[in-house]
Amino acid sequence: MSISVINLKEKCLKINELHSYKVVAQMNDYYFKLVKVNREFVWHSHNNTDEVFILIDGYLRIELRDKALTLKPGEMLVIPKGVEHRTISPQVSTVLLIEPMDTVNTGDADGSLTDNSLEWI
Amino acid sequence: MSISVINLKEKCLKINELHSYKVVAQMNDYYFKLVKVNREFVWHSHNNTDEVFILIDGYLRIELRDKALTLKPGEMLVIPKGVEHRTISPQVSTVLLIEPMDTVNTGDADGSLTDNSLEWI
Repeated sequence: MSISVINLKEKCLKINELHSYKVVAQMNDYYFKLVKVNREFVWHSHNNTDEVFILIDGYLRIELRDKALTLKPGEMLVIPKGVEHRTISPQVSTVLLIEPMDTVNTGDADGSLTDNSLEWI
Repeated sequence: MSISVINLKEKCLKINELHSYKVVAQMNDYYFKLVKVNREFVWHSHNNTDEVFILIDGYLRIELRDKALTLKPGEMLVIPKGVEHRTISPQVSTVLLIEPMDTVNTGDADGSLTDNSLEWI
């Protein structure tokens, strides 16, 4: 793969659909994935990995079993492995996720919201 | 460690010195490190890992042996393992680095610019 600059805002403009994870970069066995979201997600956890959220635009609420956190653009959060969480995005928001390549978005919950398409943009 | 939101701009305000790497987050065995830079760095490579640069503010030139790239705020770059590179920041710039916890900033070059302090902020 060529070594080239990745402009995150420009990548966002290429995403025309909600809830479809787009890979923008790879670091070792990790993917950097952009996704536009506007939904209430399922409760789930990832039992083998931490997961990083960086909010690019919009507003994201992340609920844990004992508290809720909100992310604004330029803020990030690490969900440790095994910690149950769900995201709620009342408006269209763009999230940069960083996690191992084989991480499934719905973790241990699986179900109809699982997305394995992982197209590169 | 508590699960809490990390505001990257607020973290930047806590950094009062140049060229000192500050850890802001950990994901598995990776660190997210902020550093303010204003210098020409040494040529080096990391032989065991890719390295991610995300520019938070300022301007960063990254030279490879066969080309040069520039990063503006909101842009990122993955330097693959083993690829020689050096950074040049003609103005004070803030970079978010993502790499394994044991990664040394000067890679295989070592020398006077090596920084192993890695304070958490």
